[in-house]
Amino acid sequence: MREVAVVSAGMTPFGELWRHSLRDLFVEASLEALRNARADSVDAVYVGNMSGGQFVGQEHLAPLLVDQLGFRGVAATRVESACASGGAALRAAFLDVASGMSDVVLAAGVEKMNDGADVTGVLASAADQEAEVYHGVTFPGLYAMIARAHMEQHGTTLEDLAAVSVKNHRHGALNPKAQFRQEVTLEQVMNSSLVADPLRLLHCSPVSDGAAAVLLCPLSRAKEFTDRPVRIRASGLATSSMALAERRDPAFLDAVRLSASRAYKMAGLSPSGIDVAEVHDCFSIAEICVIEALCFVEPGRGGQAARTGETALGGRLPVNPSGGLKSKGHPVGATGIAQVIEIFDQLRGAAGERQVADAAIGLTQNMGGSGASSVVHIFERV
Amino acid sequence: MREVAVVSAGMTPFGELWRHSLRDLFVEASLEALRNARADSVDAVYVGNMSGGQFVGQEHLAPLLVDQLGFRGVAATRVESACASGGAALRAAFLDVASGMSDVVLAAGVEKMNDGADVTGVLASAADQEAEVYHGVTFPGLYAMIARAHMEQHGTTLEDLAAVSVKNHRHGALNPKAQFRQEVTLEQVMNSSLVADPLRLLHCSPVSDGAAAVLLCPLSRAKEFTDRPVRIRASGLATSSMALAERRDPAFLDAVRLSASRAYKMAGLSPSGIDVAEVHDCFSIAEICVIEALCFVEPGRGGQAARTGETALGGRLPVNPSGGLKSKGHPVGATGIAQVIEIFDQLRGAAGERQVADAAIGLTQNMGGSGASSVVHIFERV
Repeated sequence: MREVAVVSAGMTPFGELWRHSLRDLFVEASLEALRNARADSVDAVYVGNMSGGQFVGQEHLAPLLVDQLGFRGVAATRVESACASGGAALRAAFLDVASGMSDVVLAAGVEKMNDGADVTGVLASAADQEAEVYHGVTFPGLYAMIARAHMEQHGTTLEDLAAVSVKNHRHGALNPKAQFRQEVTLEQVMNSSLVADPLRLLHCSPVSDGAAAVLLCPLSRAKEFTDRPVRIRASGLATSSMALAERRDPAFLDAVRLSASRAYKMAGLSPSGIDVAEVHDCFSIAEICVIEALCFVEPGRGGQAARTGETALGGRLPVNPSGGLKSKGHPVGATGIAQVIEIFDQLRGAAGERQVADAAIGLTQNMGGSGASSVVHIFERV
Repeated sequence: MREVAVVSAGMTPFGELWRHSLRDLFVEASLEALRNARADSVDAVYVGNMSGGQFVGQEHLAPLLVDQLGFRGVAATRVESACASGGAALRAAFLDVASGMSDVVLAAGVEKMNDGADVTGVLASAADQEAEVYHGVTFPGLYAMIARAHMEQHGTTLEDLAAVSVKNHRHGALNPKAQFRQEVTLEQVMNSSLVADPLRLLHCSPVSDGAAAVLLCPLSRAKEFTDRPVRIRASGLATSSMALAERRDPAFLDAVRLSASRAYKMAGLSPSGIDVAEVHDCFSIAEICVIEALCFVEPGRGGQAARTGETALGGRLPVNPSGGLKSKGHPVGATGIAQVIEIFDQLRGAAGERQVADAAIGLTQNMGGSGASSVVHIFERV
């Protein structure tokens, strides 16, 4: 297996971008990644997208988007794993380069959610239609059940949940690409509108448009494109049952644990080797469960981590320095790649006000549904 | 790059399977592939599916389907490239094994089209929404324009078009898994209902449900699963403009030519080295254009090939011995894998009444949209 590097990145701002179409967003992010590497051709493109078909009536995005980019002819494929589509696209691009099939590969995620579709209904198609959706549950409801289970089992408090949002908004306020660049207080979170008890509006990531792209190549060729490449040290992908009710413990994200175990093993690293992480905080409870499943904290202690500052910028292990999905925004297919871009910037010392001092090893964790799929990547400063 | 083999296959019958859900179909085909190889575990699964979201309200198929199969936890990803989703899934599985990441990988395609959705509308989302669909064109209309252009340029006749359907129905009548197991006459084709002039009902592949699965592993391990493995000698993927109007020549499928060139180069073979092929005859005109783009016949001579018997069983180069999409059926996400299964059977001498004598090298060509994406694989008897 060839060693693979990330050599450049591009990203649109995330937000309600009513004046931008899906193809505009893809092209803007991809061109930025290509320009930054001074690359004028690629061998392959992977597009991470959850639901172009339902959101904007457009399937078959891969050939459409490479053509829009000016690369008609280039091999291109769309990869979908709901909200983990970006992470899954990165993994596909990684395997393409690692196999020796392609040298220069673009992995780009994109989603156009604000375009008139019933967003809650479309997102629900990432849950089990027969066992869950038919009976009326939506994602805020599923994550509310996860939150309730975590509170029951571990004594996690409403303040713990709110602290995740407060932290991520504080980080996101420093991110020029974030959808919400303002801090929120614990009181604001705890008094925001109830969405699905115990989750309130400020526990939920927003509905977003946006795109993010990274360029990959063999590590041996990385210096052609940048003087600061970042090596992909491991890729782990795992699944769990789609329906929350079929899991042994709804508050334990077993696919996250399994994907992380595979990545740690491939990297030859333990969780203590990670300096900075971007994880899938689609709801505040998700970050709590994810950092436990990644073994960043003891089981049941995820609720305390944000409250004590352990996972804040300046803490023991900063989590979601970008602002996370909560503050940066969550255009679902783009999220996994945007996470990679934050780690790429952090490991290159290019994260500006959000810089984690001397970050050498970073991790991304991207999740689909209520945790039925999870993709973990580990990156290393070269 | 490691050598990769196909070691077993499984497939549902194709047809209007009102009593079978998408998950039933996937499990039936996949279990057959696993049973045939006596494999009780896999390292990864790739699901080829065009539009579970629009057809049956279900995205995020990869974790759902591996769980239904009893493989909860296993790495799984959905790959989409419209009607080329199956071929794209095979390519992703091939790269996964070739890279050394995974050893035993299932590539399965599935589509459930008969379930109440507006099938023509959903399929149209594989064309360019802005440049084509918005203005009212559907796929029969797009392929009718391709047919008109081919007739104008090359003198292709209505009899030539009809001969493709007659040939493929004759082949499909010998295939127990085919949706239509009856022969049709030239007169029947030419007098069937007009769909989009010059294309008539019997020029069009049907709306189908079905699934198909193949098991891949490193060639070095193939004998653990079968005494007759088939080697994947090459994989070529290419794209073209999504909108037909933007192509230099609507009757020339440039993505097919490019994907084939890449595959021939990788295999170190010329078109004359191919003994049998399965190609994407979603409409009769498609087979004509595809065999030209694959360089099986001279440019403009595709129309004569079926009429003269050159591409029939017993001819110089049998094309679509399975019956093709026309007669076997076209559950869009499953088609690319079903093509591989026919070639797998042919190269193992297991194609029964459809057997091409002494077939040693076979090719599959799977297409998305009106030719915006094309995947070509070349296989070799070991």
